[in-house]
Amino acid sequence: MTVATLSALQQRVLTTEVAHHIGERVRVQGWLHTLRRLGGITFLVVRDGYGLLQVVSQSPEAFAALEGLQVETVIAVEGLVAAEPQAPGGVELREPGVEVITPVTEPPPFPLNKPTLKVGLPVQLDHGVLAARNPRQRSLFRLSAGVMRAFRDTLTAEGFTEVQTPKFVASATESGANVFKLDYFGRPAYLAQSPQLYKQVLTGVFERVFEVGPVFRAEPHDTTRHLSEYVSLDVEMAFIVDHRTVMALLTQVIRGILAALAERHAEDLARWEVVMPTAPEVFPSLFFPEAQELIYQRHGVDVRGEPDLSPQDERWLGEWAREAHGSDFLFVTGYPMSKRPFYTHPNPADARYSNSFDLLFRGTELVTGGQRLHRYEDYLTALERGGLPREPFEWYLEAFRHGMPPHGGFAIGLERLLTQLTGAGNVRLATLFPRDLNRLTP
Amino acid sequence: MTVATLSALQQRVLTTEVAHHIGERVRVQGWLHTLRRLGGITFLVVRDGYGLLQVVSQSPEAFAALEGLQVETVIAVEGLVAAEPQAPGGVELREPGVEVITPVTEPPPFPLNKPTLKVGLPVQLDHGVLAARNPRQRSLFRLSAGVMRAFRDTLTAEGFTEVQTPKFVASATESGANVFKLDYFGRPAYLAQSPQLYKQVLTGVFERVFEVGPVFRAEPHDTTRHLSEYVSLDVEMAFIVDHRTVMALLTQVIRGILAALAERHAEDLARWEVVMPTAPEVFPSLFFPEAQELIYQRHGVDVRGEPDLSPQDERWLGEWAREAHGSDFLFVTGYPMSKRPFYTHPNPADARYSNSFDLLFRGTELVTGGQRLHRYEDYLTALERGGLPREPFEWYLEAFRHGMPPHGGFAIGLERLLTQLTGAGNVRLATLFPRDLNRLTP
Repeated sequence: MTVATLSALQQRVLTTEVAHHIGERVRVQGWLHTLRRLGGITFLVVRDGYGLLQVVSQSPEAFAALEGLQVETVIAVEGLVAAEPQAPGGVELREPGVEVITPVTEPPPFPLNKPTLKVGLPVQLDHGVLAARNPRQRSLFRLSAGVMRAFRDTLTAEGFTEVQTPKFVASATESGANVFKLDYFGRPAYLAQSPQLYKQVLTGVFERVFEVGPVFRAEPHDTTRHLSEYVSLDVEMAFIVDHRTVMALLTQVIRGILAALAERHAEDLARWEVVMPTAPEVFPSLFFPEAQELIYQRHGVDVRGEPDLSPQDERWLGEWAREAHGSDFLFVTGYPMSKRPFYTHPNPADARYSNSFDLLFRGTELVTGGQRLHRYEDYLTALERGGLPREPFEWYLEAFRHGMPPHGGFAIGLERLLTQLTGAGNVRLATLFPRDLNRLTP
Repeated sequence: MTVATLSALQQRVLTTEVAHHIGERVRVQGWLHTLRRLGGITFLVVRDGYGLLQVVSQSPEAFAALEGLQVETVIAVEGLVAAEPQAPGGVELREPGVEVITPVTEPPPFPLNKPTLKVGLPVQLDHGVLAARNPRQRSLFRLSAGVMRAFRDTLTAEGFTEVQTPKFVASATESGANVFKLDYFGRPAYLAQSPQLYKQVLTGVFERVFEVGPVFRAEPHDTTRHLSEYVSLDVEMAFIVDHRTVMALLTQVIRGILAALAERHAEDLARWEVVMPTAPEVFPSLFFPEAQELIYQRHGVDVRGEPDLSPQDERWLGEWAREAHGSDFLFVTGYPMSKRPFYTHPNPADARYSNSFDLLFRGTELVTGGQRLHRYEDYLTALERGGLPREPFEWYLEAFRHGMPPHGGFAIGLERLLTQLTGAGNVRLATLFPRDLNRLTP
C-alpha cells in the first residue's frame, strides 16, 4: 500500500498529488484555509495535512455551502484540475463543488492562515494545537520528524540497535538535583533524566545502541533553553578506540541529518529561511586548553585555567571555526575531569583532562559526548571520588564486573537542535507540547 | 559510512563479516563466550554484538592470555579465516592470537552461553542486563527493534508524521484509575497513560500521525500481562470513512511488520522457534453480536447480550478464524458503546454499538482501535454522559471547536506483540528493563 492507495480508501487525492491529475476531476479534503472574493472571482484555498490547493470560481453559488461558516471548516472540494503557474503548486481546481464535513462557526483565537503567526508567545503556546495548523509552524514539526527519521536511518545503516530504556528509576543518584520524584506503589521512584547508565550497559549486549525518547528534568530555570521534558537522541557504541571514534560517528550522524533535511524538507526549511549549515567531512577540533589559548590570542581575554567555557567563549570559538575552517561545527575536546560526570574516561596522557567533547554549532553547545570508563575498578574509584554511594549502582556495576569493552556515546537534544537550526528563538516553539516550570497544558 | 567503515575505524571486522575474508588474517573483538579443550584441540567461541565465531588451535599457548580468566572476558582475536562447514556461520579462525581487553575473574551468576537460559524468572530479571547477552535472549530484543523499525517504515511510506506527545499531563480524567501522580513544581501532575487525546488533535494538523513511546499505568495487577511502563505503538489518521479505513491500515501495518521480521530477522525468529502467523490480505471480521452468536452455535455457551468478550470467548473466536479462514488474525467490530471510552464513535445505524474494533491474534486481544467522535457537540454530550468534567478537556475541545475531520486509530503494545509472537510466556521477558508492582531495578 502506498500513500495513494490509502487516499483511494478515503476516496480523495492529497493536495500534493493533484498536479498529477491535470484535466481530470478530483476530490480533495481538508480545511478551509482562506476564502476571498476579488473582482467577481472567488478564491478558496484548501489546506490538507500536506499542502495547500487553490480553488477558483466565477460563480459565487459554488461556495454557497460555506455561507456563515468560518475558516478551519472541514470540507471536501471536487473540481477540474488545471495548470495555473500563479497558484501554489502550479495547479488549481476549477468548476468546483464544495461539501461541508465539519462546520466551524467561531473564528480562531488568532489568524492561522498568514505566512507567519503574529501572536505573543504565551497565547501561541496556550493554543499550540491550533497554532501548529499554520503551515510555517507545521513545517517546524515536520523538520522535527525529519530529524528523528534521519537519525535512526543513519544509525540503523551503521548496525545500531534501537532500545527502549526505563523512565522509572529507583534512584536519583546519577546527578542528584533536578529529578522528578513520585510515589511508585508506596515507595519512592524517580523519572529518568537520561538513558545514560542504561545505554552504557546495553553496549555490553548489542555493541551499538540508540534511543529516541523523552527525558525529564525538574529544571527550575525559566529560560528560552530549558524544558522539563524533552526528546533526547541517544547513542552509545562499544569497541571504540577513544572519544575520537565517537566524534567520527557523531560527524556522520549530523551530516546524515542535514543531508536528509535538505533532500526531503526543502519547503519546510525555506519557510524558516534556514541557511543550511556548513558541515565538512571532518569537523575542526580544538583541545580544551588550546581553545582557551586561542581566545586569549584573538580576543585578549584570559580564560586560561577556567574549568569550563562560557557562552561568550563558545561564540568566539564558533566565529573562529567559521573563519579558519568554513565550518559551522566545532569540536572542543578534553574538558577538565572536574566538570564532567563520574563515568567520564580521563585522557590517558594527562588525567586532569577528559576523553570527552562538546560539539558547538554556530557557537553554541549542541551535543555532549565522550568515552566512558569501562573497568570495574575505575568505577569504584570514581564513585568514591565523587562521594556517591555504591548501592544504587549495583545493577550497573554488575555489567562492568562481567566484562565491558571501551565505549562511548553522545546525546542530542531534539528541540535544541531544531531551535538552533531554524532560529526559532525559544526551545518551547520547537516542540508541540512544551512542558516548563509553569506549563502543563495543552 | 557503512557498518564496515565504522568497524574499520575500530580496526576490526564483525563476526558476521568474517565469512567475506576467507584466506585473510582478520581481527575480531568481543566477549569470551565459551572455551573448551577437546582431544588436544582448543575451541574458543567469541561473541560480538552481532554473532558468534569459532576460533581453533592445537597449540594451548595460543590462549595463554586467558589463563585464570572467566567467560565474558572482553578480548580481541586475530587469526586466519578458513571455511569450516561444522562451525557456526561456516567459518572459523585458525592460527589465532588472543589479546585481553577487559579481564573478568568472576563467573556469571548463571550460564550465559547455553542455547537457552536455565534460570528462574526473578533471578533472570534481577540480572537482566547480563541475561540479555545470551544470544537467544538478545534475539528477542532484536525482534523488538525490528518491530519498531517496520512499524515506522510502513507508516512513513503511507505519509504519516512521527510526533512526540507529552508524558506530563495536568489531569488524570481520561480514565481516572491507574495513573501515576507526581509533584510538578509544587502542583499535581500525572504521567500520560496513552497519547490518545494528543494524537487525535494532531490529526487536525498532520492528518496522519504515529508515535513510538513509553506509556505509564499504575497497574496494581501482578500478572504475566501487566507492566507499569510499556512501549505503545500509536497511530491516528484523519479523513477516514469509518473504522474500516483504520482496520485496512492496521492490516497493512501488521503485514508490514511480519514481512520485515521474516526478511531481516530469520535467525532471531528461529531461536524462538516462531511459526510465522498467517496474515491474509484481508483479515476476517465479525460484528460483535455475530461473534457471540457464533460462540453459541459452535460451543453451546450463551454469551449473547454480554457487554464484552471473555478470554475464553476470544480463544474460541481465534480457533474459528483459523479453521474457517486460515487466519491467525480476526477483527471483532462494534463492541457495545457502554464498554468503550467517551471518545468512541457510535455505529450510525445502531447507537448501542460502536465503530470500534479489537484485533485478536491467535485468540488473544492484541490491538484496540476505532473511529473517534469528531464533532464538538458530540464531545459535550459524551463528557456529560460519562460524568466527566469539562474543564480539564478544554484544550482538547478547542481543537474540535475549530474543525476536526472524521478520524480514528489504534495502539499496539510492543511487549505484548512480542510475547504473543514468540511465546515468551511473560510480558516482563519481552522488555529489557521491566517495571511492575514490585520491580524498579535494574
